[in-house]
Amino acid sequence: MHKETVDFIRQTFKEPSDFIPLHEPRFVGNERKYVLDAIDSTFVSSVGKYVDQFEQMMCDITGAKYAVAIVNGTNALHLSLILAGVKAGDEVISQSLTFIATANAIAYCNATPHFVDVDKKTMGLSPSLLKKHLQNIALIKEGACYNKLTGKKIAACVPMHTFGLPLYIDELIEVCNEYHIPVIEDAAESLGSYYKDKHTGTFGLLGTFSFNGNKTVTSGGGGAIVTNNKELAKQAKHLSTQSKIPHKWEYKHDNIGYNYRMPNINAALACAQLEQLNYYIKNKRDLSDKYFNFFENQKNVKLIREVESGKANYWLNAILLNDKKARDNFLEYTNSNGIMTRPIWGLMNNLEMFKDCPKADLSNAKYFEDRIVNITSSVRINE
Amino acid sequence: MHKETVDFIRQTFKEPSDFIPLHEPRFVGNERKYVLDAIDSTFVSSVGKYVDQFEQMMCDITGAKYAVAIVNGTNALHLSLILAGVKAGDEVISQSLTFIATANAIAYCNATPHFVDVDKKTMGLSPSLLKKHLQNIALIKEGACYNKLTGKKIAACVPMHTFGLPLYIDELIEVCNEYHIPVIEDAAESLGSYYKDKHTGTFGLLGTFSFNGNKTVTSGGGGAIVTNNKELAKQAKHLSTQSKIPHKWEYKHDNIGYNYRMPNINAALACAQLEQLNYYIKNKRDLSDKYFNFFENQKNVKLIREVESGKANYWLNAILLNDKKARDNFLEYTNSNGIMTRPIWGLMNNLEMFKDCPKADLSNAKYFEDRIVNITSSVRINE
Repeated sequence: MHKETVDFIRQTFKEPSDFIPLHEPRFVGNERKYVLDAIDSTFVSSVGKYVDQFEQMMCDITGAKYAVAIVNGTNALHLSLILAGVKAGDEVISQSLTFIATANAIAYCNATPHFVDVDKKTMGLSPSLLKKHLQNIALIKEGACYNKLTGKKIAACVPMHTFGLPLYIDELIEVCNEYHIPVIEDAAESLGSYYKDKHTGTFGLLGTFSFNGNKTVTSGGGGAIVTNNKELAKQAKHLSTQSKIPHKWEYKHDNIGYNYRMPNINAALACAQLEQLNYYIKNKRDLSDKYFNFFENQKNVKLIREVESGKANYWLNAILLNDKKARDNFLEYTNSNGIMTRPIWGLMNNLEMFKDCPKADLSNAKYFEDRIVNITSSVRINE
Repeated sequence: MHKETVDFIRQTFKEPSDFIPLHEPRFVGNERKYVLDAIDSTFVSSVGKYVDQFEQMMCDITGAKYAVAIVNGTNALHLSLILAGVKAGDEVISQSLTFIATANAIAYCNATPHFVDVDKKTMGLSPSLLKKHLQNIALIKEGACYNKLTGKKIAACVPMHTFGLPLYIDELIEVCNEYHIPVIEDAAESLGSYYKDKHTGTFGLLGTFSFNGNKTVTSGGGGAIVTNNKELAKQAKHLSTQSKIPHKWEYKHDNIGYNYRMPNINAALACAQLEQLNYYIKNKRDLSDKYFNFFENQKNVKLIREVESGKANYWLNAILLNDKKARDNFLEYTNSNGIMTRPIWGLMNNLEMFKDCPKADLSNAKYFEDRIVNITSSVRINE
């Protein structure tokens, strides 16, 4: 069976080289043109027309009222947590099944991740399991949520749309609203993914995106914050530019600020890439269909697909194997045969620095940790 | 007198436009070529040949054994403070006369800046005033330095080479060594500046550089850490890539990490710029000579020059006016006449978030705050 999979991937991708990476960026549009234009304008740093254009495009794509260009997704998340009011000593609900950036950003605020399980279909934070958990541990006091067991404030909730598969975000927001917990959507992987026809990242108070080299579209390094809250958008720009108060020449800063703006040269790359987003998503969804048809005839492997109300960008296709041994065999075989594949992330609660964080039962996360492998998912341009 | 200055600047820069910015980047070398090459290679993110090449060039230029490419100077400083062992609750000696990034980076560690005065010639941290201050407040306990008045550990010292003018770094290191205080040199502004024929940034345990758009050379956004300590360099790379333990496919992280690597597309720009560094420095030093000759004949204005053992890059030329009123008049006149000029930064200890930080007498800093103005300093290419 493994050989068939390797052959299928080679056939599907028609890559000239023996080694096929998991996800390669494609620069077949205006990337060169816009980047050269940014250089020629001499505006390569945190101010420039591509930064503005990028923000407008992100509004147009996601339907959010405001978008702020940030240096990368991790720091977009950090800033969003600050904006949502997370303070040192607080707890922030999140997934143990996520990329490390989610948990690290919480740690940057000197807050503690509080891990709740993911849903068995979406691999994203489960509304029903969160509700069940909060029923046991939450205490509402003066319009805020506290963890009865630790006495700490639960200051935010950060769900993550795993591999671009939309989680049940609408239902999750409902639970969080009931418990007065602001939601920051980690949409790092889900640009172009929708839930109930609404773009992921736009359901919560703030949403964050990543434009790292491995993402659906890339700016080299880059990120974005989206929100419908004008004041938060303004604060995001302010805090990401060292909290400098605008003045013709004076340097005045009214807060601890950050050097978190996306440079114009990276925004130029992002704009060219965003122009191609629709084509990329179509290509990726088509690829997922191809995989689906292929794996339907395979025993002991199942391709993970979007849930009924969701529309996934299928950033990274993920297959579910029978157990950890089967997973390891598959990883070993594919990687030794030139097809780069990867397991899902190790659970956050097993890492040394997060092992003592509060957590709910995490059986689903553990189930996926043992069984999920990502397979080749680049946009196909060699057809 | 102001009119003469404006005329002199217009004559010197021969800019085609009416408005002359304070410091513009110049892209007259291989910038376009290298950036397009990075795009064509598809390696635009945190891995790529230009990142490696940039690090090698930084070693060659500074003479440091190791260099690590970082997303910007602020975050290079943050990481260096962590690497030097600064912990929450510690104090870090620094200048009150500096760009906000220095103080912010200390705050990111949940440490407190402890402000000491600058030297009257260099505008950088004064070794003699630091020594005098430490004699009053320092207590050495188990090989570490403590502030007797607050009981807090003085975990590091961050001097800053203001506008690229080398401070008395050798003498400062001596004082810090005596008091067991590790030194991180904020060399953000001093690429190409030397003290006693040794490159700034290489005297302390770690040194940091910035490649922001307003710097002598730029990568859009970018920074670097240099050190002669192999283990610290290794840790800098590790912490700046989310503390991921290298593995063919597994995700394992052994520490709170950061998304702080410089993307390859930015490194490509940096490499092309660094190739021109010698020419830029020569051009800038020549400009400073021109200014010196011009201002020698002007009453009530003095150009700030390098001290005897120092060789400045003259990133931004700075003039000293008689008092705050004279400074404000000059700023008003030049800026209304199309010549962008700027005062030096407001003192850190006057900002709301740092006003309660421990501090020594800061008379020199205050003196400069009232009187210093930066004047046009771009590399001249229109000759």
